[in-house]
Amino acid sequence: MALDRLIEAIKRTGNPSVVGLDPRLEYIPDFIVNKAFKEQGETLQGAAAAILEFNKGLIDAVCDIVPAVKPQAAYYEMYGWAGVRVLAETISYAKTKGMFVITDGKRNDIGSTMEAYAAAHLGVTRVGSSEIAAFGADALTVNGYLGTDGILPLLEVCKAFDTGIFVLVKTSNPSSKELQDNLIDGLPVYMKMGRLCERWGEQLPGKYGYSGVGAVVGATWPDQLKELRSALPATFFLVPGYGAQGGGAADIAGAFDKNGMGAIINSSRAVLCAWKKEGCDPKDYAGAARREALRMKNDITAVIR
Amino acid sequence: MALDRLIEAIKRTGNPSVVGLDPRLEYIPDFIVNKAFKEQGETLQGAAAAILEFNKGLIDAVCDIVPAVKPQAAYYEMYGWAGVRVLAETISYAKTKGMFVITDGKRNDIGSTMEAYAAAHLGVTRVGSSEIAAFGADALTVNGYLGTDGILPLLEVCKAFDTGIFVLVKTSNPSSKELQDNLIDGLPVYMKMGRLCERWGEQLPGKYGYSGVGAVVGATWPDQLKELRSALPATFFLVPGYGAQGGGAADIAGAFDKNGMGAIINSSRAVLCAWKKEGCDPKDYAGAARREALRMKNDITAVIR
Repeated sequence: MALDRLIEAIKRTGNPSVVGLDPRLEYIPDFIVNKAFKEQGETLQGAAAAILEFNKGLIDAVCDIVPAVKPQAAYYEMYGWAGVRVLAETISYAKTKGMFVITDGKRNDIGSTMEAYAAAHLGVTRVGSSEIAAFGADALTVNGYLGTDGILPLLEVCKAFDTGIFVLVKTSNPSSKELQDNLIDGLPVYMKMGRLCERWGEQLPGKYGYSGVGAVVGATWPDQLKELRSALPATFFLVPGYGAQGGGAADIAGAFDKNGMGAIINSSRAVLCAWKKEGCDPKDYAGAARREALRMKNDITAVIR
Repeated sequence: MALDRLIEAIKRTGNPSVVGLDPRLEYIPDFIVNKAFKEQGETLQGAAAAILEFNKGLIDAVCDIVPAVKPQAAYYEMYGWAGVRVLAETISYAKTKGMFVITDGKRNDIGSTMEAYAAAHLGVTRVGSSEIAAFGADALTVNGYLGTDGILPLLEVCKAFDTGIFVLVKTSNPSSKELQDNLIDGLPVYMKMGRLCERWGEQLPGKYGYSGVGAVVGATWPDQLKELRSALPATFFLVPGYGAQGGGAADIAGAFDKNGMGAIINSSRAVLCAWKKEGCDPKDYAGAARREALRMKNDITAVIR
């Protein structure tokens, strides 16, 4: 089961963190961008080429110390089909380096259309007599607003292709309370969604007690993290909002179980832009990313030990 | 304002319907698929080429009688970056034929990432000193589970680029009731989401009384359609679920206001696969789509007059 592989990668690296690959052009050193523009022009293809080189450098720099990467689909879509091609190439490259890849797409739709998203990101697409993995991630973030029949098609594909999902439960942004904190029969919406994750997860049991249906819970809500950790014993958490969005190491302690497992903490901007913050030679952007990833690892593991 | 343009196109054609471009390979006549495979192999590129030719034929056949098309992103993503390129090419082609294009992507994320989706689908992406429209739709469907700060970045882009959004309110699938029908302070979740649409829409007022923030409400829920029409006077409805999902013309009558405006009804499979149902020469697939689109127009306009 896919999240078993994630858990094993976390154990191997001793690092429950994931690097978010959200490559805005302004995060990329000029020497990379200028080279790409020189070769391909100030075009979407040029931007995409710069992103791919940047991503590869980051992956090379952290693949032995970080178990997973999380490319955010939006930052690739904004560069059109050329950007989306680089999303696929980034996923493929990270997998060849042994990393677990979570595509952050927050996809959602009704059953028949969700089958298409499942094929795209977590399975294969049939073309004539061939079956082709269009993107081939290990896991995909999804939005459960549509309910069970938008999720079941994913579970079938996850079973067949050893992949997993993370369902939005309590998002890191301030307005998440507008809908997610409202009470339904005395329970907040996020808890209702979390319980659906536990139920959906029964179809993808894992050998370490966590199912193949994880939940996204923001680092910016430490009380809810604790509450959800206790209420959802079989649901692994993907935790965004650490670092740039304001969540600190103390805030995410509650995401982990008594064995220090059960969650993976995402950091995007702090790692991608570490070279700017350090003020180091931009050519050393990947080294700076590695140093920040190690700093983050120490920061997180200090609170869960 | 973008939805003013949609309303004008509906008035011009006398047809409040939209053709959903959800092009599964099995909907496409063999003569198109075989030609594409012969030229490009049984590859994602071959599949994408077949989809583009199919879509262009459909658009040519209906562009004078149907005001809008709604390509569903999932069916393009499943063919990888080649499919996503055809999504962009389909959008561009439909616009040159004067059609209003709604990309059905149900995108959602926190503010900074939603800015990237907004740039991708509803605005432009800055690359060096250039600004490039990556996909360039007139409107995008979005999921509001994350609340206001996931929506505001879209509204800024909509203002700047004359584009609009449709927020999921009450989806057409059976499980939509799991979350969406629950009561929060006596009001169903879908009504709470609908009221947020009215509030968000205040920032994009339109000249026909409808804002640039529309709502997705399924044809499969006629009572809720009526209830929401009455409660959300400034919110234009995009109504899926007509036809293949079971909603009939009588079911969607409540989506319209007293002037017969305020909604657009989607049909995908019935139009795309009309050639199969008719049993006509597959070479006449586009003619069959046109006949079905006219039949649907008559079906819908009969109940709103």
